[in-house]
Amino acid sequence: PKCKCIKYVFLLSSTYATIVILKMMLMSPLTSYFCLTRKVFANLEDTKFVSSVEDKKLVRIDPDVERVRRCHQNDLENIIPFVVISLLYALTAPELSAALLHFCLFASSRVFHTVAYIGAQPQSSRGLSLIVGMLVTFSMFYRVLSKVFLL
Amino acid sequence: PKCKCIKYVFLLSSTYATIVILKMMLMSPLTSYFCLTRKVFANLEDTKFVSSVEDKKLVRIDPDVERVRRCHQNDLENIIPFVVISLLYALTAPELSAALLHFCLFASSRVFHTVAYIGAQPQSSRGLSLIVGMLVTFSMFYRVLSKVFLL
Amino acid sequence: PKCKCIKYVFLLSSTYATIVILKMMLMSPLTSYFCLTRKVFANLEDTKFVSSVEDKKLVRIDPDVERVRRCHQNDLENIIPFVVISLLYALTAPELSAALLHFCLFASSRVFHTVAYIGAQPQSSRGLSLIVGMLVTFSMFYRVLSKVFLL
Repeated sequence: PKCKCIKYVFLLSSTYATIVILKMMLMSPLTSYFCLTRKVFANLEDTKFVSSVEDKKLVRIDPDVERVRRCHQNDLENIIPFVVISLLYALTAPELSAALLHFCLFASSRVFHTVAYIGAQPQSSRGLSLIVGMLVTFSMFYRVLSKVFLL
Repeated sequence: PKCKCIKYVFLLSSTYATIVILKMMLMSPLTSYFCLTRKVFANLEDTKFVSSVEDKKLVRIDPDVERVRRCHQNDLENIIPFVVISLLYALTAPELSAALLHFCLFASSRVFHTVAYIGAQPQSSRGLSLIVGMLVTFSMFYRVLSKVFLL
Repeated sequence: PKCKCIKYVFLLSSTYATIVILKMMLMSPLTSYFCLTRKVFANLEDTKFVSSVEDKKLVRIDPDVERVRRCHQNDLENIIPFVVISLLYALTAPELSAALLHFCLFASSRVFHTVAYIGAQPQSSRGLSLIVGMLVTFSMFYRVLSKVFLL
């Protein structure tokens, strides 16, 4: 039964890893959308996408686009460590309910974080969701390291 | 035979994951090369690498260096999700030919993307290669998630 | 015995992967600490964390905060490839002592790199630690690829 539980937790961690990475990848089209609607481009050759008299003026920095970029960067810094550690955490054979709690909490905290960031919600909504996500990750770190050093 | 196929696909996905990560890591020396040839530095202590009368002037932003940096960042945002999802995709036991098609298409689209980005090729060469890479990744996401939710 | 050795090396690689990712994640609170002590914020809503008459002035760029950010970005670019490749490297059944040497060298080079970067130590201390870390990763790349193409 223990072996079966590892299999289910591993399946669960793969599913959640896939979901949060999918969420992270969707930031890319979102950035493109903001760039196109606000007519902000990072490269001169990209200005071809909109017809314009003065192309060079479009190569600039826009606060809204930078906000989406920072949100994407924050995802990279938090979701990738979660994905790696969640797969290793699944190998430590945790309780199915505990694993589900960790994964659900992390996934919802990241969705909440993105909504709060893009929507420029007043603090500490974004700060709290960031801290919840990090605490979940640190809890998984703790379990993996404690299991490894006891073996 | 199914078990053997998983092994080959896993070997294949490891190989392609290694190749695209290697490609991504080579952006680091490329950035250093651009920084040194254009005498652009992000930190004051780095100006030691070139003998110069006015060091402080070298700490600035250069459009070519920023272009390489953006290309590296785009690699981080696309290649790392591919690596994670390709390993999970291999565990869903896909057809060897389908897996090979996915991996080859992704790897070549990323090489093409880098050449188009660094060379500042006219659009939509870079945009197309980016979209091809993302579609391949989304196709693998779809297979992993559909397999998981049917199990 | 070969099978047992793979298990130990895999355990070792998981442990070191966990440690370096933990080190990378600690850059996040460090950035927040620098932002709060230097009163530098990327978003207008974050200025709520400090009481201030003129909020808008706090949304600016600070060289020390940018230094921590660049250090974090460099971690992302080097530690994540290491984590992926170290797990694949463990599957190639290397000698336990060789694996330990690779992992120890990489982990210490990254800690040294962070200390040299945040402390703005004179070059080439940071450059050397970066190169050592990359050489270790490339050595693991070489082993994985040579094993795969001989199979």
